[in-house]
Amino acid sequence: MHAITISEPGGPEALVWAEVPDPQPGEGEVLVEVTASAVNRADIMQRQGFYDPPPGASAHPGLECSGRVAALGPGVSGWAVGDEVCALLAGGGYAEKVVVPAGQLLPVPQGVGLKEAAALPEVVCTVWSNVFMVAHLRPGETLLVHGGSSGIGTMAIQLAKAVGAKVAVTAGTKEKLERCAELGADVLINYREQDFVAEVKDATGGAGADVILDNMGAKYLDRNVRALAVNGRLAIIGMQGGRKGELDIGTLLAKRAAVTATSLRARPLEEKAAVVAAVREHVWPLFAGGHVRPVVDRELPMSEAAEGHRVVEESGHIGKVLLVTS
Amino acid sequence: MHAITISEPGGPEALVWAEVPDPQPGEGEVLVEVTASAVNRADIMQRQGFYDPPPGASAHPGLECSGRVAALGPGVSGWAVGDEVCALLAGGGYAEKVVVPAGQLLPVPQGVGLKEAAALPEVVCTVWSNVFMVAHLRPGETLLVHGGSSGIGTMAIQLAKAVGAKVAVTAGTKEKLERCAELGADVLINYREQDFVAEVKDATGGAGADVILDNMGAKYLDRNVRALAVNGRLAIIGMQGGRKGELDIGTLLAKRAAVTATSLRARPLEEKAAVVAAVREHVWPLFAGGHVRPVVDRELPMSEAAEGHRVVEESGHIGKVLLVTS
Repeated sequence: MHAITISEPGGPEALVWAEVPDPQPGEGEVLVEVTASAVNRADIMQRQGFYDPPPGASAHPGLECSGRVAALGPGVSGWAVGDEVCALLAGGGYAEKVVVPAGQLLPVPQGVGLKEAAALPEVVCTVWSNVFMVAHLRPGETLLVHGGSSGIGTMAIQLAKAVGAKVAVTAGTKEKLERCAELGADVLINYREQDFVAEVKDATGGAGADVILDNMGAKYLDRNVRALAVNGRLAIIGMQGGRKGELDIGTLLAKRAAVTATSLRARPLEEKAAVVAAVREHVWPLFAGGHVRPVVDRELPMSEAAEGHRVVEESGHIGKVLLVTS
Repeated sequence: MHAITISEPGGPEALVWAEVPDPQPGEGEVLVEVTASAVNRADIMQRQGFYDPPPGASAHPGLECSGRVAALGPGVSGWAVGDEVCALLAGGGYAEKVVVPAGQLLPVPQGVGLKEAAALPEVVCTVWSNVFMVAHLRPGETLLVHGGSSGIGTMAIQLAKAVGAKVAVTAGTKEKLERCAELGADVLINYREQDFVAEVKDATGGAGADVILDNMGAKYLDRNVRALAVNGRLAIIGMQGGRKGELDIGTLLAKRAAVTATSLRARPLEEKAAVVAAVREHVWPLFAGGHVRPVVDRELPMSEAAEGHRVVEESGHIGKVLLVTS
């Protein structure tokens, strides 16, 4: 089969579509013939040499895919060859075939096409596990989403609105904020021109955000803590603004607030399977009802993954960039 | 009645036993004739002028007491004049009488004397709300308690052991560590001589602590994050080592860990009542079974509260210092 290989770390040109051996499904695994994958920031870090795959994972990038079940490893039940699926991966999605632990497979949700289903696993599992399973966003609470027009952001807006929360977003352009509004965002903050702490407080009668979903890390840490409400929960899922930041414990304590940080990729199989099962139970029905939909910026041939990385690195996109095998 | 008054912020001598007006119970409140109160570090900060009582609270220090119900305000049920009780207070415990919201009253637990029951409300509510209600310590997990011989520490050791957890403690002397061991602590760390990160990892096969109960704040923040296990929870309840510290978000994220910070005093009545109700349900039965007991360092007459503050400020005590009215 073909897959995107990284001969040595570097720019987008390091991504090379090459002939590689087919993977073989082991015990509890399923072989999926890939229809599409999607670009995640973690793929870019992996390409740059800053985020090696966890032990046992494919060397090829790609944290999610959609496609058809091509073969079942020993001990797999509940799936059949030919099933249309999407999957959360520890790697290997940028390929014509990929092996997936059965617990990380999902059916393509009702109302979603096979190709665009590749836009879902990472963002839905990340948003659900952080905003709902860790931070317990409740109806009537306010969620602040940084990077509201990103893949994660566009899904976080929709899921939070679907459960009856109020949503504030930050983004860097008027166009991006307009797309967030179309998806349901209530409070639009241009981080280039506005102070998100002041704007969130204004929009909540001085209370602040009950939950913040943050991809910036250190750069926003102090402001995020200031923007939290009493009993607020800051869920950090990225460090685009650096790794080490000053934490004002006094403010955190006065607010009885929490700072959490998670990633999906390194979790053990049983934790990933628990997230996937929760997503299937709680989120998948929202697609059938039309309350939530994948947001796709563009589709590119998988062999042109380099172009997909350029688009995401320039933050010129809204939603997900898909990589399609044929 | 008499109460400890603070004419102006200062050293222990600022605490003056003086004649003051009797408090009157309002709607939903109970008047308690105080048998004993206990010294908390927050009282010392209040005496120094750094921690004013929340709006509506008594101006006198004292965050807990034991005694007898002397009168019921309108709308109170479930309590009768003469009942032996202890109570979590927003202030006013250093006095012959104090008014308490009914939701913050507890019966004196079976097997505990009326005086020594004053040693319980703050430490039991603080430990239960943080270690169990927020950080969800589970049987088989490891709890690291800083200041293991303090009032909080001695209660945290006992409650964690009672639910089947492993307990590591830090303290500054051999004598204090020996008392922690008598209460059940499994891993004894002298913070003056040992690196608690290395010791906790050693004692857990490299894994680290699942929950850390911390009173040091900034000074220990980085080491606490390093000492956490995967899925670990750092519960900060004090800032004796400062307010602002550097948070390594990368380590937090790799461990999928959480940092929480809380205090009891400023919480709204309904949250305090929820903590008190949980304590009555889950912790009170442990006293009857003899699994948990108050740890009292010494008793002093309440009029000598200044001496109690000196003892706690010098950290010469183990467990709680009681202040007894007569």
